[in-house]
Amino acid sequence: MNIKYLHTMIRVKNLEVSKNFYCNILGLKEVRRVDNEKGKFTLLFLCTEDFDEKKQNLKEQPLLELTYNWNSNENYSSGRNFGHLCYEVENIYDFCNELIKKGITINRPPRDGYMAFIKSPDGISIELLQKGKKLEISEPWESMKNIGTW
Amino acid sequence: MNIKYLHTMIRVKNLEVSKNFYCNILGLKEVRRVDNEKGKFTLLFLCTEDFDEKKQNLKEQPLLELTYNWNSNENYSSGRNFGHLCYEVENIYDFCNELIKKGITINRPPRDGYMAFIKSPDGISIELLQKGKKLEISEPWESMKNIGTW
Repeated sequence: MNIKYLHTMIRVKNLEVSKNFYCNILGLKEVRRVDNEKGKFTLLFLCTEDFDEKKQNLKEQPLLELTYNWNSNENYSSGRNFGHLCYEVENIYDFCNELIKKGITINRPPRDGYMAFIKSPDGISIELLQKGKKLEISEPWESMKNIGTW
Repeated sequence: MNIKYLHTMIRVKNLEVSKNFYCNILGLKEVRRVDNEKGKFTLLFLCTEDFDEKKQNLKEQPLLELTYNWNSNENYSSGRNFGHLCYEVENIYDFCNELIKKGITINRPPRDGYMAFIKSPDGISIELLQKGKKLEISEPWESMKNIGTW
């Protein structure tokens, strides 16, 4: 029996805040939006840049699905069975610098030149990994302390 | 700045139980295993069948990462910010029949010939979607009731 990974769904309290976080700050791209009047929810499907829209291969890679319930003002709780989403970046120092400029807290700085953790506006833990080999360990990253949990 | 979706990580209480669930029951394939003696944890990276091992394109599709902490006997809690993992199947009736035979509860039966929900041993919600068009609505599925939450 064939099975194919389509997406991971997360719930977001504020769609605009989350869209800003995932698209403008992390650099994901919206590939599909569903506004359901009857169910009063919006779904946003997001891919990363290597996604080739021209090929219409929406299902060639799993997507991140954001679910926004219009009439909920719930602060969505975090559980321990879900761990994190992981994305690879070209240069983890440059990427983290950009995140800091945009006001994002680096909960686990890339002291090792390889791995960092941040959190989404709804407390979803996001791991960032350096593409290829670890970068040379360097300041100010090496001395940076952890902040909070991830 | 390029960014690439590598994996979604979930924590599992019992590695053998989860391996049986994800690999033998759902049909995912193990592509990488890390046993870390120092950190006392095991990581299992799982892909779906369309993954082409020969091309060594481990990063061509995001994977599911299972984290098993050796010394933890924690029943991992569920949160509301994480929604579900979603997989597409060839025939949702056949797939659900196989699941039932293997002792899996169908929390949301595919009454519409299109969508079903089950849960992992650690309470991770899993959505199953019919590939292509909805199947014709038919019994016994149409009359099946929901069981629990998902």
